Amino acid sequence: MSVDYAAQILEGSHRAAARLISWLEDEDERAYECMRKLYPHTGRAYVVGITGSPGAGKSTLTTALTRVIRKSGLKVGIIAVDPSSPFTGGALLGDRVRMSELADDPDIYIRSMATRGFLGGMAKAAADVVRVLDALGKDVIVIETVGVGQDEVDIVGVADTTCVVMVPGLGDAIQSMKAGIMEIADVFVINKADHPGSDMLCAEICARLDMDAQLRERGWVAPVNKTVAVEGVGLDEMWLSIESHRKYLLDSGRFYDNRRERISREALRMIHGELFRVVREQLEQNGRLDAAVEQLMNRKLDPYTLMRDIVTDWLSSSQCKRRRDEDTQS
Amino acid sequence: MSVDYAAQILEGSHRAAARLISWLEDEDERAYECMRKLYPHTGRAYVVGITGSPGAGKSTLTTALTRVIRKSGLKVGIIAVDPSSPFTGGALLGDRVRMSELADDPDIYIRSMATRGFLGGMAKAAADVVRVLDALGKDVIVIETVGVGQDEVDIVGVADTTCVVMVPGLGDAIQSMKAGIMEIADVFVINKADHPGSDMLCAEICARLDMDAQLRERGWVAPVNKTVAVEGVGLDEMWLSIESHRKYLLDSGRFYDNRRERISREALRMIHGELFRVVREQLEQNGRLDAAVEQLMNRKLDPYTLMRDIVTDWLSSSQCKRRRDEDTQS
Repeated sequence: MSVDYAAQILEGSHRAAARLISWLEDEDERAYECMRKLYPHTGRAYVVGITGSPGAGKSTLTTALTRVIRKSGLKVGIIAVDPSSPFTGGALLGDRVRMSELADDPDIYIRSMATRGFLGGMAKAAADVVRVLDALGKDVIVIETVGVGQDEVDIVGVADTTCVVMVPGLGDAIQSMKAGIMEIADVFVINKADHPGSDMLCAEICARLDMDAQLRERGWVAPVNKTVAVEGVGLDEMWLSIESHRKYLLDSGRFYDNRRERISREALRMIHGELFRVVREQLEQNGRLDAAVEQLMNRKLDPYTLMRDIVTDWLSSSQCKRRRDEDTQS
Repeated sequence: MSVDYAAQILEGSHRAAARLISWLEDEDERAYECMRKLYPHTGRAYVVGITGSPGAGKSTLTTALTRVIRKSGLKVGIIAVDPSSPFTGGALLGDRVRMSELADDPDIYIRSMATRGFLGGMAKAAADVVRVLDALGKDVIVIETVGVGQDEVDIVGVADTTCVVMVPGLGDAIQSMKAGIMEIADVFVINKADHPGSDMLCAEICARLDMDAQLRERGWVAPVNKTVAVEGVGLDEMWLSIESHRKYLLDSGRFYDNRRERISREALRMIHGELFRVVREQLEQNGRLDAAVEQLMNRKLDPYTLMRDIVTDWLSSSQCKRRRDEDTQS
């Protein structure tokens, strides 16, 4: 009998949460039983995504925002999937010190995640960790991630409200706008707003929002907040923006539409991952892939035929095996 | 009866190649038959990857390198998967003009690819396009991609020789070295080498190569080339570096080891994609996912149980359907 981490997590044990997340990362079979038990207790927490280029000050912003959220008594979970974040081991000593203040608060739980090697993708992993922190009783879950690459955009898909952080003078504003960042922003944050160029950046964002009819027609125009996270300036206003976005989602019914869409996407991802896991396991065991690779190298077989053959054959053999098992039992 | 693009491609028709690649992008069923026919005629072309940050001048470098390769009579295929590349629609007018000179040469084929939305991932898509250009008779295939994110690193895995492009003064050298770029570089290129700081950057790279035993032990030490692509300076030397890497791969037997590994990885990826396609199609048709999502929303079902149930059920029903089909036929 294994320890019942699910029960401990529902009682608020950070230690049990840490263990379960490690099981999830290791794809340990025992994680699933726990996650099944926790699932009915999830869906309550509000999820905020914070994304932006390296150097935009996301970690400092996350820390400062967390302090503001804590003032209203809400419990906070933080998930860092940014390789340059002090949570995950990057960045400077000063940042780490600032962050460690948060770690003393028992109503804050911080978890960093490696950004590579997750088979089902980072988005699936992030969604699982969100559920754990949700069951742990956190009211707000903040996900910090670098806004580069498809993986990161997928992670943002886990959030109810996505904040895109930019800084003046980094010269990446136009670049980011190209890469689809405008489309995913519910709230814009211009951090380091005491630096020169912050008014111009603000004007650029607003002009782009005005121009793009598609962005306007969604019924919500993303507000542009200015912050100086390192001095705690502008964070109350940023939190108000997040709260009004939340209110808009609830009033318009989009909150449940978004969550429905997200759950559907997640379920598909999980089914996909599970199928591939089973197939890969079998191919590695029976040596079929190795044999096929030799034929592919000699051009005696093509990968398209191999792909279809394996998918088909695997289905029949799994089925036959199950029937044999049933026959043996009866 | 559909047009036999495979035969036309083997005769060197660029137009047929363009059509087939569009089919691949659209996941058109007809693409597979063509790809099956082409496969025995592939594996001949040498694949060069060019990667580096936006602003490193990769497109100009690709253009200049292509001119050098053409001097020796070799035919060239170019695949651009860089969103900031003039091939794919980004960048400045000047770059486009430079590039369009290449388009007049009938022995050069240029194809750009969108960087988002590929289900099997960009790496699978790039590998397919490489095979088409290979069958088309191109001797060297150059893949240009931004060196950011897991997707891009995967694309590089398609190349025999990977060139990592850096520029002095962009301040991203250390950043790139962190992100695993050092490990994938077979050839370093310092472009814009007439800018200040190019000697220092060169020294930094060499120091890093000296320091890292793992990089040395591979039996090949990546040479550092200096180029000024916009003036055509240093490109002959860069091409020589690529050719000596090729010679090293062939002499050491690593060429076939690498290709074997790549084919194995590609086959797994294709099986992964095919499984997902089949499952998604069925779930959309029978409405089971929609029904399940409601239960997931109400917390009456958890996604972990759903995942296992669907994988199991799907296996049985596929099997039963196949049996029914066979019974009907007999």
